[in-house]
Amino acid sequence: MRPQDIIRKKRDGGELSREEIEFFVRGVTSGDVADYQSTALLMAILLKGMSDAEQSLLTQAMLHSGEILDFSDIPKPKADKHSTGGVGDKTSLLIAPLAAAAGICVPMISGRGLGHTGGTLDKLESIPGYRVNLSLKEFRAVLDKCGFAMNGQTAEIAPADRKLYALRDATATVEAIPLIVASIISKKGAAGLNAMVIDVKTGSGAFMREHDRARELAKALVKTGNSLGVRSQALITDMNQPLGEAVGNSVEVLECIELLRGEIRTGTRPVLDLSIELAARMVMLVQLESSLDEARARIRRVYESGEALECFRHNVAAQGGDPRVCDEPRQILPLTDKAFKVESPRSGFVAAIDTEEIGNAIAEAGGGRVRVEDVINPKVGFVSAVKIGDELKPGALIGRVFCDDDTRGQTASARIQAAYSVSEDSPAELSLIKEVVE
Amino acid sequence: MRPQDIIRKKRDGGELSREEIEFFVRGVTSGDVADYQSTALLMAILLKGMSDAEQSLLTQAMLHSGEILDFSDIPKPKADKHSTGGVGDKTSLLIAPLAAAAGICVPMISGRGLGHTGGTLDKLESIPGYRVNLSLKEFRAVLDKCGFAMNGQTAEIAPADRKLYALRDATATVEAIPLIVASIISKKGAAGLNAMVIDVKTGSGAFMREHDRARELAKALVKTGNSLGVRSQALITDMNQPLGEAVGNSVEVLECIELLRGEIRTGTRPVLDLSIELAARMVMLVQLESSLDEARARIRRVYESGEALECFRHNVAAQGGDPRVCDEPRQILPLTDKAFKVESPRSGFVAAIDTEEIGNAIAEAGGGRVRVEDVINPKVGFVSAVKIGDELKPGALIGRVFCDDDTRGQTASARIQAAYSVSEDSPAELSLIKEVVE
Repeated sequence: MRPQDIIRKKRDGGELSREEIEFFVRGVTSGDVADYQSTALLMAILLKGMSDAEQSLLTQAMLHSGEILDFSDIPKPKADKHSTGGVGDKTSLLIAPLAAAAGICVPMISGRGLGHTGGTLDKLESIPGYRVNLSLKEFRAVLDKCGFAMNGQTAEIAPADRKLYALRDATATVEAIPLIVASIISKKGAAGLNAMVIDVKTGSGAFMREHDRARELAKALVKTGNSLGVRSQALITDMNQPLGEAVGNSVEVLECIELLRGEIRTGTRPVLDLSIELAARMVMLVQLESSLDEARARIRRVYESGEALECFRHNVAAQGGDPRVCDEPRQILPLTDKAFKVESPRSGFVAAIDTEEIGNAIAEAGGGRVRVEDVINPKVGFVSAVKIGDELKPGALIGRVFCDDDTRGQTASARIQAAYSVSEDSPAELSLIKEVVE
Repeated sequence: MRPQDIIRKKRDGGELSREEIEFFVRGVTSGDVADYQSTALLMAILLKGMSDAEQSLLTQAMLHSGEILDFSDIPKPKADKHSTGGVGDKTSLLIAPLAAAAGICVPMISGRGLGHTGGTLDKLESIPGYRVNLSLKEFRAVLDKCGFAMNGQTAEIAPADRKLYALRDATATVEAIPLIVASIISKKGAAGLNAMVIDVKTGSGAFMREHDRARELAKALVKTGNSLGVRSQALITDMNQPLGEAVGNSVEVLECIELLRGEIRTGTRPVLDLSIELAARMVMLVQLESSLDEARARIRRVYESGEALECFRHNVAAQGGDPRVCDEPRQILPLTDKAFKVESPRSGFVAAIDTEEIGNAIAEAGGGRVRVEDVINPKVGFVSAVKIGDELKPGALIGRVFCDDDTRGQTASARIQAAYSVSEDSPAELSLIKEVVE
């Protein structure tokens, strides 16, 4: 078997066999298939697609390219959440403690931010001392002790995915649904999950701007997850505006801790609502409750009782962070008082938001990564004061950019001002959860 | 500008700008664009195509990636021939001396054989001492002295093409018409030609098996050549059987020299006919004659007078070869008497020939390259005794495989026997020249 013959077959729209897919993934992992051959095949897959069978085989092969974690000695159902990424999307920090407090084991393998989207690992690192590079042994110990652990992808898990992901980013092949699905599910499958909920974002700050594409992705994720024995469900949720108020790193952690502490504002309530819904669906999927209403009630109980906050506190301590962040987040987190107001240039309604532009503006101000090698400044962030549909007077506060650097802060502030469309007509109301795919 | 943005644009079917194409080709040449990015773009080009404008820009950028040869001090029109490759396709060895003897300067940059097709450089190297790795200075001196020179592609000519060609072979992106066109015309353009004829082969031994694809390629080649100021014309010619009698290296050179010496057989006449036609069209394109009939007459004159043979003899001597090859080719060329007969298993007409299989059988017997790194044995070859339409009795001679090794010779003989379809019905007659594209 030669890589070019596999590439030719997919190029011509053929269906790859198990042997061909396994040969390719083995070659990617070992280096026998050259990177320049991988990317030609990735492009052919993007343009020609994959059947359900190919999709499942690719995912399995990538899953088996590395170690498969075995947490069967932890006597709890294992579940996790995955989001396709957005701006201000911080639900992992709430869902993990909510689900763990409700009795689920959550071995969460997260990623770094790149481009307009943030990454859970970067956010967690805002907490002084918090480590996201645990060894497998440490990860297992934290998971056993706290009910959840949050870590970066280790070299042992799905190495074929690590390699292909880096190549996809450099070759405009990120958007191929079969490749997205294989990347997500191979990692989740390797973490030994029983169930998984997937938050597929759609709108101006999402990778899938159109609802149809988001639905296509959600269906492929659920089908492939189920085909591998991971009970899966997806929610398609709105990303036409930042989720909650905060966009950045410290500011997002602050928002989450305040929510866990019961401090809810109109602007931050959607974060809590979505987190409870996603955690409740995890409870349902692992059959800890027999109806969705009971599952929601169970999550609300651990939220209101403060058990979720305690669970988070234990995790922070166990992963090397300063647990006082749960009591005095504003004192412990690296924040700055230096703020640049974003004000409305005119009167009218907030009609639309270029959410990706907000993500990019904050990333370029230092709050994210424009390039993989960029170092993040956790203090940099944006906290919005308005939502789509809000009515504004000229000069009304849209939000604040936090940044120690004058030039960068002003630039970000101007870009974000331009990202808000204020018009005379009141826009249609947006629903946060648009569709359930199961 | 980032390579991935260019890849994305082509992936989505967009038209690349001059700046984007030049950025990409510069990056390929310098190494700033990684090979894995190049191949993703190559696959996107294969699947999405290129407009005439993009095609011309790509070719220009590749042409300008290296040195452009300037033979303007040689006071003759410059023209060359290019063939898309076939089995027994040896016309370069006739056309170069025919055109040179007729007053054209022919700076011929040729290639090596790979797979089922042979290469002019390998054939020439059958002549003891003949060098095809001339320096640019030596090349110019031979060209000035003999009217033609034949050499391999040097590192200075179209380096972007060298790099992309190697990648295309490993990634199933050889067949993309825009890439074929850019590869061919960039090298010809860099050789400072005024005119070019292209022999586009079609049939069972050609890369383009279907006439429609061959026509598409021929049109793109002519259009792009003309757009770069190289007056171009293409002939679509038959490759449903080996051209002439010989397939291999020494045996093909022998056939050419015999033809130049005026020794014509029924089986070798098509080689001479096609060579005269292609050379005559070069004469027309550079306007040395004002009608095609006059151009043909001019070529026939230099053929019949022996001037073309003398021209060839001078070239052989100038490029380090033994000029006695023109007088006693059977004594000078490395040939073997050890022959394996290929005989017809039944009576009937030669109805069809798997010409590619003949090329592959001879390559695997040592007469060509299965892999780039293979070393060629010039003695190995096949000389056919029949053509499509010939009537055979059982046991009639189809041809002879020449090979010193028993096992290899027998294997090749059996494969070639199987490549000839002998059936009861007489097939339709094939025309050698199927179409002129100008």
